Amino acid sequence: MTVEFAEVPYPDEPTRAEALRRHATLLKPVGSLGRLEELGAWVAACQAKVPPRPFSRPRVIVFAADHGIAAKGVSAYPPEVTARRVSALLEGGGVTNALARVGGAGVRVIDVGVDADTPLTGFKVRRGSGAIDVEDALTAEEVEAALRAGIEVADAEVDSGADLLIAGDLGVGASTPSSVLVAALTGTEPVAVVGRGSGIDDTTWMRKAAAIRDALRRARAVLTDPVALLRTSGGADLAAIAGFLAQAAVRRTPVLLDGLTAGAAALVAEELAPGARSWWLAAHRCAEPAHDLVLTHLDLKPVLDLDIRLGEGSGAAAALPLLAMATRLLTEVATYEP
Amino acid sequence: MTVEFAEVPYPDEPTRAEALRRHATLLKPVGSLGRLEELGAWVAACQAKVPPRPFSRPRVIVFAADHGIAAKGVSAYPPEVTARRVSALLEGGGVTNALARVGGAGVRVIDVGVDADTPLTGFKVRRGSGAIDVEDALTAEEVEAALRAGIEVADAEVDSGADLLIAGDLGVGASTPSSVLVAALTGTEPVAVVGRGSGIDDTTWMRKAAAIRDALRRARAVLTDPVALLRTSGGADLAAIAGFLAQAAVRRTPVLLDGLTAGAAALVAEELAPGARSWWLAAHRCAEPAHDLVLTHLDLKPVLDLDIRLGEGSGAAAALPLLAMATRLLTEVATYEP
Repeated sequence: MTVEFAEVPYPDEPTRAEALRRHATLLKPVGSLGRLEELGAWVAACQAKVPPRPFSRPRVIVFAADHGIAAKGVSAYPPEVTARRVSALLEGGGVTNALARVGGAGVRVIDVGVDADTPLTGFKVRRGSGAIDVEDALTAEEVEAALRAGIEVADAEVDSGADLLIAGDLGVGASTPSSVLVAALTGTEPVAVVGRGSGIDDTTWMRKAAAIRDALRRARAVLTDPVALLRTSGGADLAAIAGFLAQAAVRRTPVLLDGLTAGAAALVAEELAPGARSWWLAAHRCAEPAHDLVLTHLDLKPVLDLDIRLGEGSGAAAALPLLAMATRLLTEVATYEP
Repeated sequence: MTVEFAEVPYPDEPTRAEALRRHATLLKPVGSLGRLEELGAWVAACQAKVPPRPFSRPRVIVFAADHGIAAKGVSAYPPEVTARRVSALLEGGGVTNALARVGGAGVRVIDVGVDADTPLTGFKVRRGSGAIDVEDALTAEEVEAALRAGIEVADAEVDSGADLLIAGDLGVGASTPSSVLVAALTGTEPVAVVGRGSGIDDTTWMRKAAAIRDALRRARAVLTDPVALLRTSGGADLAAIAGFLAQAAVRRTPVLLDGLTAGAAALVAEELAPGARSWWLAAHRCAEPAHDLVLTHLDLKPVLDLDIRLGEGSGAAAALPLLAMATRLLTEVATYEP
């Protein structure tokens, strides 16, 4: 494995303290904006600037891929849906387009592993992935290609002026490998990570639980090697998002972290690039049990708790206006001292 | 007392059901957007229209007033701050301006009882209010004038095309009468409603607890008469907001409900215009114990929980983009059936 990350810097702590001091001078009772004050100070620390600059180019990157395990009947939806949802996003009719529009964010879709032909060929690693209960998700070369895709996209976005990044997933079956990665990286029993994913019934839930149990058994041999985990139990989306999140941190760019799949990739990214988590804000608590484990493991406190479980960057896009508000408060509100 | 409200209609239930059915046809797993789906359906029910129209004129109305009880040392701030904060809002440098700007809402300030001269004379009922631990807050005539001010402002806003309303309070000492009203209308012991307000220390907290206890004793004689409660224990802001919230419901206009003071006024408004609560969405859980009682009593579930305790409509303004998103999802997202 030859993908390596530069050392991750930390957001600037003196700037964070200065931002909180500035909040105490604003024309309002001290501390009366609660969590919004913390969030603004975090943005200031990421930018090393008080007051922070309002976001000029927030971006949502949706990494689309299908998962071989879906053929085992672990999802409520057939894989054909993925290509339809990719098309909708490209035409502006996806869920995340609607949400991102309100927050003023651009949306970009990257096909890293959709099990169908899409117009997006530049970063495609393969079609679908192996059924992780019995075989590896990807080859070592495919994992590396997907990680590099995430890194390259993060670099390109930051070079184009992106100042707030969101990574989302899109693909049928993604919650199964995501749950396996979370169980593997947090040392959790499989049954504790099995959620309802796309909205599955009890029979499907039992199939999913068996798939996660079997996949986790296969993953045990490589528990200490995050890249090998992506190979045995991940997928092109998870690998690409992990590379993206780690590189965003290397590039000192704040990230709003979406739900379970982005969270599972974040666990991997923190292993690959320790300290990256200080550049991430948990946008929401998603309605999947494994996501709570992610939040605890990374010590992140979610902003929203709205039972969102779509992925696609939707939960993070929903929180974006709050982060924009938190940033603008430090810039636009009058102080006691004229 | 001659202020009466027309019968409050209900949001259209068949439309709410139709909106939820429409959500099930959108290109995403059924139910995967959690609370955002409920919120969109509520907006559709308020508008009696599926898909609902995106908000074209959301408005935040801040009712400013001072409170005589502040002279007893129940707040961390001197009353002079109120006029400063009114000026900041008028100049666009207030907290709520910054928040409302992100959500595309206009902000209007109404002086109903600031204890200083402001340029806003049209609805002023008096300067300040009585110290409610020993005397009435307002006269019966002043209560009626304040209620009518709220009604008139609601009518004017709706007539000008406002399709989403927020009411906020601004004034030193407001959490004391608000807490008294909540205790009176929910049958709660005084000590359970005493919060930290603007951020008070333990000594101030004890003074505030004593003031609330004494005011509540004075209020006991009129517990069953909400207008008399506004007179003995309220203030011009609370009365105006109560009139505003009740009239917004009469005019079939959805409201994002702010924190403690708006919540206390909402309890009164629900007494004056039963059913009004079905037109209100609790924007957030504020960091005041009495606010939880409001939410329970009105059976409202807050959208945000960010420890905001400023008032000024800030918590509601913070939630506005989420409501806009919930509305737009029903309009802008592609369906499975082309």
